[in-house]
Amino acid sequence: MLRFQAQSLLRSNFKQFLRLQSTVSIPQTQKGVIFYEHGGDLHYKDIPVPKPKPNEILVNVKYSGVCHTDLHAWKGDWPLSVKLPLVGGHEGAGVVVAKGSNVNNFEIGDLAGIKWLNGSCMSCELCESGHESNCEHADLSGYTHDGSFQQYATADAVQAAKIPEGTNLAEVAPVLCAGITVYKALKEASLSPGQWVCISGAAGGLGSLAVQYGKAMGLRVIGIDGGPGKEELFKSLGGEVFIDFTKQKTDSDMVAAIQKATNGGPHGVINVSVSDAAISLSTKYVRTCGTVVLVGLPAHSVVKSDVFSHVVKSINIKGSYVGNRADTREALDFFSRGLIKSPIKVVGLSELPAVYKLMEAGKILGRYVVDTAK
Amino acid sequence: MLRFQAQSLLRSNFKQFLRLQSTVSIPQTQKGVIFYEHGGDLHYKDIPVPKPKPNEILVNVKYSGVCHTDLHAWKGDWPLSVKLPLVGGHEGAGVVVAKGSNVNNFEIGDLAGIKWLNGSCMSCELCESGHESNCEHADLSGYTHDGSFQQYATADAVQAAKIPEGTNLAEVAPVLCAGITVYKALKEASLSPGQWVCISGAAGGLGSLAVQYGKAMGLRVIGIDGGPGKEELFKSLGGEVFIDFTKQKTDSDMVAAIQKATNGGPHGVINVSVSDAAISLSTKYVRTCGTVVLVGLPAHSVVKSDVFSHVVKSINIKGSYVGNRADTREALDFFSRGLIKSPIKVVGLSELPAVYKLMEAGKILGRYVVDTAK
Amino acid sequence: MLRFQAQSLLRSNFKQFLRLQSTVSIPQTQKGVIFYEHGGDLHYKDIPVPKPKPNEILVNVKYSGVCHTDLHAWKGDWPLSVKLPLVGGHEGAGVVVAKGSNVNNFEIGDLAGIKWLNGSCMSCELCESGHESNCEHADLSGYTHDGSFQQYATADAVQAAKIPEGTNLAEVAPVLCAGITVYKALKEASLSPGQWVCISGAAGGLGSLAVQYGKAMGLRVIGIDGGPGKEELFKSLGGEVFIDFTKQKTDSDMVAAIQKATNGGPHGVINVSVSDAAISLSTKYVRTCGTVVLVGLPAHSVVKSDVFSHVVKSINIKGSYVGNRADTREALDFFSRGLIKSPIKVVGLSELPAVYKLMEAGKILGRYVVDTAK
Amino acid sequence: MLRFQAQSLLRSNFKQFLRLQSTVSIPQTQKGVIFYEHGGDLHYKDIPVPKPKPNEILVNVKYSGVCHTDLHAWKGDWPLSVKLPLVGGHEGAGVVVAKGSNVNNFEIGDLAGIKWLNGSCMSCELCESGHESNCEHADLSGYTHDGSFQQYATADAVQAAKIPEGTNLAEVAPVLCAGITVYKALKEASLSPGQWVCISGAAGGLGSLAVQYGKAMGLRVIGIDGGPGKEELFKSLGGEVFIDFTKQKTDSDMVAAIQKATNGGPHGVINVSVSDAAISLSTKYVRTCGTVVLVGLPAHSVVKSDVFSHVVKSINIKGSYVGNRADTREALDFFSRGLIKSPIKVVGLSELPAVYKLMEAGKILGRYVVDTAK
Repeated sequence: MLRFQAQSLLRSNFKQFLRLQSTVSIPQTQKGVIFYEHGGDLHYKDIPVPKPKPNEILVNVKYSGVCHTDLHAWKGDWPLSVKLPLVGGHEGAGVVVAKGSNVNNFEIGDLAGIKWLNGSCMSCELCESGHESNCEHADLSGYTHDGSFQQYATADAVQAAKIPEGTNLAEVAPVLCAGITVYKALKEASLSPGQWVCISGAAGGLGSLAVQYGKAMGLRVIGIDGGPGKEELFKSLGGEVFIDFTKQKTDSDMVAAIQKATNGGPHGVINVSVSDAAISLSTKYVRTCGTVVLVGLPAHSVVKSDVFSHVVKSINIKGSYVGNRADTREALDFFSRGLIKSPIKVVGLSELPAVYKLMEAGKILGRYVVDTAK
Repeated sequence: MLRFQAQSLLRSNFKQFLRLQSTVSIPQTQKGVIFYEHGGDLHYKDIPVPKPKPNEILVNVKYSGVCHTDLHAWKGDWPLSVKLPLVGGHEGAGVVVAKGSNVNNFEIGDLAGIKWLNGSCMSCELCESGHESNCEHADLSGYTHDGSFQQYATADAVQAAKIPEGTNLAEVAPVLCAGITVYKALKEASLSPGQWVCISGAAGGLGSLAVQYGKAMGLRVIGIDGGPGKEELFKSLGGEVFIDFTKQKTDSDMVAAIQKATNGGPHGVINVSVSDAAISLSTKYVRTCGTVVLVGLPAHSVVKSDVFSHVVKSINIKGSYVGNRADTREALDFFSRGLIKSPIKVVGLSELPAVYKLMEAGKILGRYVVDTAK
Repeated sequence: MLRFQAQSLLRSNFKQFLRLQSTVSIPQTQKGVIFYEHGGDLHYKDIPVPKPKPNEILVNVKYSGVCHTDLHAWKGDWPLSVKLPLVGGHEGAGVVVAKGSNVNNFEIGDLAGIKWLNGSCMSCELCESGHESNCEHADLSGYTHDGSFQQYATADAVQAAKIPEGTNLAEVAPVLCAGITVYKALKEASLSPGQWVCISGAAGGLGSLAVQYGKAMGLRVIGIDGGPGKEELFKSLGGEVFIDFTKQKTDSDMVAAIQKATNGGPHGVINVSVSDAAISLSTKYVRTCGTVVLVGLPAHSVVKSDVFSHVVKSINIKGSYVGNRADTREALDFFSRGLIKSPIKVVGLSELPAVYKLMEAGKILGRYVVDTAK
Repeated sequence: MLRFQAQSLLRSNFKQFLRLQSTVSIPQTQKGVIFYEHGGDLHYKDIPVPKPKPNEILVNVKYSGVCHTDLHAWKGDWPLSVKLPLVGGHEGAGVVVAKGSNVNNFEIGDLAGIKWLNGSCMSCELCESGHESNCEHADLSGYTHDGSFQQYATADAVQAAKIPEGTNLAEVAPVLCAGITVYKALKEASLSPGQWVCISGAAGGLGSLAVQYGKAMGLRVIGIDGGPGKEELFKSLGGEVFIDFTKQKTDSDMVAAIQKATNGGPHGVINVSVSDAAISLSTKYVRTCGTVVLVGLPAHSVVKSDVFSHVVKSINIKGSYVGNRADTREALDFFSRGLIKSPIKVVGLSELPAVYKLMEAGKILGRYVVDTAK
């Protein structure tokens, strides 16, 4: 109830309130969750509030989503160095409370989002052409840059997400990583409205968002997942055909069922499932001249494709990483138009260590979001 | 010498000559090479001249290239049924001598080419969008339709290649399959002029053509091959940087050498090499956001790509089959403008069985072309 | 009622019935509307049933839409020669009753549509790349080829539309020209789902279809039209913002209103209105880097664009003609999925001359469809 | 001779020299050309050296090209406000001597270019998608930001051009605006290697560069210009077919000659000519489905296109403004590979007022470059 009032206040008055004040009072210290070594204790404690550089904004983070990548950053088990000590988190939604001298695109009081790509060089061949997520000098929130598991976080103003006024900050949090990622993957599949897209892993966190984005983009959605209740969930999100893999006897049956339902196979496949076998199978059932998109990051996984059929069917296997600025704006726009629902479970930031334990144990269903005020 | 005169005559007078005649005299029988069972004898003998259907032209084949696919058709070792008995060949260049009632796009006396894709349904989803080579109902010259190893062959008028007047019919023959195939693969790599393309297998038959097409398309060409004389050949064709794989100690050295020479890796890779290891290695050295194209068809081969780097580097692995009508016209246009040299060895059609033996023994260097008059 | 039964019968049994019969009985003569000179009498009379060529199907036309182009063909006032005498009509929906020897993609009993582009050469540079509508040798139904204002009409099998079983043949008729045309124009605007498209002339026949296709493609639709009841119609079709031009005082007000509603102007504009001023105004309000599509064909009209702003805003003015085979299949697919409503008024073919008079007098609202049985 | 030595020194030692020094000595004042009101005196005088902001580099400009746009900035006759007082110039090539705290992509001693687009917001919808030149908040060198007609100029580090070591700084200067602009226009025409591009105004400053870029991109170039010596110049740059408009009697003759030479019309037309009539004529001779690109900015000019043929031929008329970061890098890369020659006339910066007079009188042939040391 209290939360609802705060949100409501935020929507109508907070921005105006901040602007009337000549300065916003920013504390010297804040609450955050920090760790000092990989796998070490996660401390919920007072830490200094960072100062924005000339190109940065300071965001008063209200809510932050919790993602599997946060677990990898903590464990340090990816082939990519992590800053230590580290404040994790890369799905932070909040309010701009300060900004550097060079920042022109944000005002104090604007809503802003902290996302995986905190900043990039903006001047290499990749950044120039909208591939800033692939920049060699990418700076990553909650990985190489202190992230959103604190009350105040800095973000490069050019990359920070602009969140429309009136947005529910708790619900938008997971969109900042999960939503943008699947939206970009759908774009990378180069589909036209009316074509079929298959979401492999359709009932999971990423998959549920992918189904909704696919539907909003005018695509026909076929989903693969397994177990009770999954088909109902999938259809409630706008999915058209559901394939329960637990009910298919063989891989050939799967391929046949998918191709029959889609009159020749889906034009694109979005692999959010991290099953090795599922990924490689998608090269079999994809439509001739279609595109298989890799999104999920299973450890030590290899995608295999038969060269003869790869050539004769002229398929494409495409990797899609996280979204760029345009993907971010567009994915948020679909959300703020009410086309995407983001089911979340809100807990206090102080409970984050417990969430990590659940995540490590594989016991998480749906998306956790932490409230930095608690 | 005699051949030169014939060619010359052909260029200037033959077409006019044919048109002046109200009808061209077409024999009832002709010489051709035919086999009745897979791996069975290749008979050079008199066979009937086929009659064109309403949508077909009858081509008096002058020269035909010989391709490895012809060996597969003869052996029947591909997972695709072959017509029996069969006249092979799908790189035939000749003159139109008759046509069906529906044919409006060819005149008697025009030069025409017989290529791998003899015809397709033209009305399925794939044909509609220029993917007629991938049509389920594709009819294949020298495979499901009697091909160019005979003096007179039929071809669907819509798919038959239009060869500009004055073209050297012996030299153009290999362009009709090998040339179009590599040209299409280069297009599929979605490169812009000034970008780097790597030809893996740069000094072979397909590779030599790919280097020249790449150069003509404004690309910078890096080539990989091994052995004496290869670098000189490569550079004479317009290649810029050559990597001799026999001089690289490890795969890592290869990757490092290629990425250094191209300032980060080639934007596209054309795999005409049929080495499994070479194909999978190309996923390592390709530039971030670049495209690996699969063209060669090694038997039972599987391309493998590490999912983590596939996603984080956002690469594509794309299959490219044979060219469509547009690819054909364009590839021939580059050839007829003199930008592509096609080194050939001409022998009589009657010697075809000997050529098959050489091919089976892996003793062929360069492209054999048969003269149907001998 | 009778019509409903016939349709219903058609859906379930007609195809099967036709296939059980070894041959379909085709009469020697039929009813049709024919004229012998431009502006001459339109005769509803007995005429011979045409015979399909090897590449053609013979369609028993059940219904045909009536389009303004039919009026131009009759008057002969376009800079394009018309066949005389002529049976007009290019929106015919019916059943295949015979086919030429070369036709493999239709069976007797299939539903088929006759559309503006009856056939093209399929082998020129334009046909090769899917621009068959722009082919120099295009054959046009009801213009250079007897069309659908008769009970039996021939059509090139490659270009004829495949209509899914169970489709309402009267309602689908206008989709065969009007629907495909606006669908193609929307594709030509190169928009992404979530972007704004403006339909100039949103409440007319073409416009109403464009609004629905735009919505189905995931676009946000702003419409321009004028007069009472138009906004309600527009919104009932899925339109989001309506601009009544009768309520805007100046062109500047129009531009301002459109740009405000779309946060900077629509990414694309589809000009189905034939007002010269409206077309040129669309170059002012289109978003920076956006695309203005020309579709309507006002006589002697010239589009004007200010070079300075054209360059600095980097806009595109693109002509879009009628759809190709892929556009046809896709547009019909949206219709048969129930996403497009096609409001029609059915009258007998014998009443066609009266419909022409109404059309000439500018008194037609909505789309007339003629029933060839009456 | 002295200049040559300086260049040579620059190439080999200057960068190293600068880096060895812990700081570069930067004077407080410098020579520059400044004006205080539109059309007012151009003062060559001592002015303060500007200080770079956190996101800026300070460039010691060695050479700067002079462009017609500089004349417009001085006169103030464009519908776009100009900063006053102003130091003009937007084709400056020099050496980085200082940089702001946020700059990571340039080192002291690197070569850098100052170009028309000094900086943009980098976070709007246009900047996000590579259209930063069209950004509403674009900051323009020598227009809204003091430019390159001074010895030391500031530039946004993200937008500043990276000039490869060893580049001739005098010759590269005009490439920074003229070269990039025509290169971008060629890209906007969406052509494939082997297609025809027409350069309207082929022998002028922009045209000469366009011909060379077109050739380097694998295009076939047809050029239009008039007068003695033009054809020879055109062909020496790699052009294939030249149309002398002074030798064509009528517009119809022009259209016929161009379409004959290109077998149907060029696939793209680059209008660098500022003749109104020439621009509108290009919509007549462009190939069906081809693209007319507008580049030149004649005052108060309107492009006109006949709607009927615009639709039936399905042509595009596309505005192309100045290049973005990627266009800049690519255009410079072609130059530094030696594929583009840039003929210039070097004079001292102090002589700039005289160059303006020549430009105003229309007496300039070729490109003037000022040496800031004189």
